[in-house]
Amino acid sequence: MSIDWIAADWGTTNLRLWAMSGRKPAERRVQARGMGGLRPDEFAPVLAEATQGWPTVPVVACGMVGSRQGWVEAPYVAVPCPATPRMVTVPGQPGGRSVGIVCGVRQNSPADVMRGEETQIAGLLALSPEFDGIACLPGTHTKWVRISAGEICNFKSFMTGELFGLLAGQSVLRHSMGGADGDMEAFRAAVSDAMARPERGFGGLFQIRAETLLAGLDPAIAKGRLSGTLIGWELAAARPWWLGCDVTIIGAPALSALYAGALEAQGVPAALMSDEDATLAGLFAAHQKSLTTT
Amino acid sequence: MSIDWIAADWGTTNLRLWAMSGRKPAERRVQARGMGGLRPDEFAPVLAEATQGWPTVPVVACGMVGSRQGWVEAPYVAVPCPATPRMVTVPGQPGGRSVGIVCGVRQNSPADVMRGEETQIAGLLALSPEFDGIACLPGTHTKWVRISAGEICNFKSFMTGELFGLLAGQSVLRHSMGGADGDMEAFRAAVSDAMARPERGFGGLFQIRAETLLAGLDPAIAKGRLSGTLIGWELAAARPWWLGCDVTIIGAPALSALYAGALEAQGVPAALMSDEDATLAGLFAAHQKSLTTT
Repeated sequence: MSIDWIAADWGTTNLRLWAMSGRKPAERRVQARGMGGLRPDEFAPVLAEATQGWPTVPVVACGMVGSRQGWVEAPYVAVPCPATPRMVTVPGQPGGRSVGIVCGVRQNSPADVMRGEETQIAGLLALSPEFDGIACLPGTHTKWVRISAGEICNFKSFMTGELFGLLAGQSVLRHSMGGADGDMEAFRAAVSDAMARPERGFGGLFQIRAETLLAGLDPAIAKGRLSGTLIGWELAAARPWWLGCDVTIIGAPALSALYAGALEAQGVPAALMSDEDATLAGLFAAHQKSLTTT
Repeated sequence: MSIDWIAADWGTTNLRLWAMSGRKPAERRVQARGMGGLRPDEFAPVLAEATQGWPTVPVVACGMVGSRQGWVEAPYVAVPCPATPRMVTVPGQPGGRSVGIVCGVRQNSPADVMRGEETQIAGLLALSPEFDGIACLPGTHTKWVRISAGEICNFKSFMTGELFGLLAGQSVLRHSMGGADGDMEAFRAAVSDAMARPERGFGGLFQIRAETLLAGLDPAIAKGRLSGTLIGWELAAARPWWLGCDVTIIGAPALSALYAGALEAQGVPAALMSDEDATLAGLFAAHQKSLTTT
């Protein structure tokens, strides 16, 4: 396969790169060189090093690389906006090639922002051009996005993933969690409880710790209960986004399956799309658009 | 004043010591030598060093020093139990004096534990022997405790303080918070919102971040909104503990004032007691009991 462009998902923590032949990835690289640890003048050499051995072809990047603290700011586009990505070009052809960065999306009221997810939404629409409904993108800051007539209409973010990471990894609950998967029965029960009475779930958090101390609570049950409580809160708050709606979940497979299971218990069937497929399709759409407009 | 005993509040992070003359503290010392950083064989030398210059008198300690990972385990007493503290004695008269550690309190169902707060409750009853009602002890793991006829009947813990610390200090919201006090109007509005619709508060967390990015949200408002959301969740979940009840708040003054303000907005007047006064009165009660029983 001949490499004709490079796709990059450059987030806070990691830099993911794909050598692309049209729509198809030929090779994949991941490095812990996220924008969170880089000064503005370090992006060009990091990219040069990370793409060594690949041809000098255009790079199309999405993610926090385009934030104000990143390489070049790719300003937020306000909703409602076309799902087709807008890009800014990094000045000076770093490494002798064009580098484009996809712009994030903002919502002024209620205030909300996304950076990276807009590319996955562009990918969803590239792969399913007639899509009309809700995209759920679970992750650190899970997004629920209403899409209609090829536009991002509005969206809502939740800190579910970040909160889970803090509670499971750094709070007193870390002593209760196992390394294994969460127990699914405990997960489902906690989702249901947290949706019905969100405040009770808040009271249940320390109880996980106490049951570990007093009754040797199974770590898999502890983990299932914590993630179920947080996802249950999110589903309770996001009810207008999924009730009676067509939902497509775009995310990592294990996390997407948790969301799909929780939605299914509410009678909402959800379609699944891999986040990598969506990202590459969205970056390809941005790459094509840049070829036709320059 | 003649020093006749030493009071110690030995928590996970800090060791607080008071040279006592009867009920009155003569001198106060605080060291960052909490049990979290000590091996079992380090407690005796740390105590000897920290009490240098004070007479060789009995020590009465409460807090995590009595946990399984502490110096000597002071097993939990199950509720319902007398509010008068039970103690275990550290074997071998370390440093040539008796050292007692107050036992924590457990509740088997729903599972819950306290260690340190039982001493403050003993202090509340020493200072107000007729107290019958609810004690609220705000902190890392806030406790609501039902007290009647001189007994701890039952209690409920919430991770409010720890969650605030993680979100304000380590999540993406840390960029939104100022060092100053939270805005009180934003606090009150968030308490009210979170109590009325707890799940909405969950959706409001990331909005704090987005308003900072898009509209330069005032850090004091961000902080007031975050603490109001968390305390609002707690009050919603703890409703059976305060509705129509006599509530006494035992805690650090600034935090206690936030809880008192939130309860007052619900029509519940709360009495305040300083946590230091309560701890010293409780340790004094334990000290007196040990003198009469040995």
